[in-house]
Amino acid sequence: MTATDDFLARNDSYAADFDGPLPLPPARQTAVVACMDARLNPHGVLGLDEGDAHVIRNAGGVVTDDVIRSLTISQRLLGTREIILIHHTDCGMLTFADDDFKRQIEDDAGFRPPWSPESFTDLDTDVRQSLRRIAADPFVPHTDAVRGFVFDVADGRLREVA
Amino acid sequence: MTATDDFLARNDSYAADFDGPLPLPPARQTAVVACMDARLNPHGVLGLDEGDAHVIRNAGGVVTDDVIRSLTISQRLLGTREIILIHHTDCGMLTFADDDFKRQIEDDAGFRPPWSPESFTDLDTDVRQSLRRIAADPFVPHTDAVRGFVFDVADGRLREVA
Repeated sequence: MTATDDFLARNDSYAADFDGPLPLPPARQTAVVACMDARLNPHGVLGLDEGDAHVIRNAGGVVTDDVIRSLTISQRLLGTREIILIHHTDCGMLTFADDDFKRQIEDDAGFRPPWSPESFTDLDTDVRQSLRRIAADPFVPHTDAVRGFVFDVADGRLREVA
Repeated sequence: MTATDDFLARNDSYAADFDGPLPLPPARQTAVVACMDARLNPHGVLGLDEGDAHVIRNAGGVVTDDVIRSLTISQRLLGTREIILIHHTDCGMLTFADDDFKRQIEDDAGFRPPWSPESFTDLDTDVRQSLRRIAADPFVPHTDAVRGFVFDVADGRLREVA
């Protein structure tokens, strides 16, 4: 039995208690951008209910062009106005350097990826970098309610990055 | 009080019951790629516990270069081997056409985004497109356990796309 089969079996009990459908636009007009890390559960951490907020996640919770695409759709088509950025302690993105990882991929696959791995060396600095990328973007229209946080995987708390 | 302030207040009760830290690599060696939709809670839908799986999300749950970046890091650096793709019914990506949306942005911002919005017209077709993008990618090493699903926002169930 694969992990996927195991997770699918758990869908039955979720569906048994499910009460839908809810409206398409997020009820709390908020988009969350968070790292993909397995220990970071945005619904738990922020107490999100189904229907409350868009949740966008990638390696690092980094504001990439794809996050800008998602935020643009979130705000322009689905009415969100606030953005919550979440990085976290003990992040995998702190454990390697872009150049080394690209070289490792080249050694294995025969050529280097055309994308930047987006590793970083300091959590607070990268949260600020992500805040600035949103502020500087010409396509995300609402950027006056954007706040950045670091989630602590040891104690479950969010700390705001000033 | 903003929605963000409200969500932050909910973090206290989460942290009060939090038991960490867990190990960095996902315990179930799985990465989930899902739409950012507010009604789709991957932890609930799949019964994920904290620490089980990476969760990657964007507008549509589309396999973009940024998803490939995240999957590459997930598999090469953090040991995941299975991939679960999740689109869902009543998706916002079904409600517009890329060209119209780019024109609308151009009318407002003065110029068009350099990225594709990645809208689609059929859920199953786009799940298959996403499966094929992963299969065709040269940098994601483990592609023999990738399965695609449509989540029904009315009844909470996952349906596999053949």
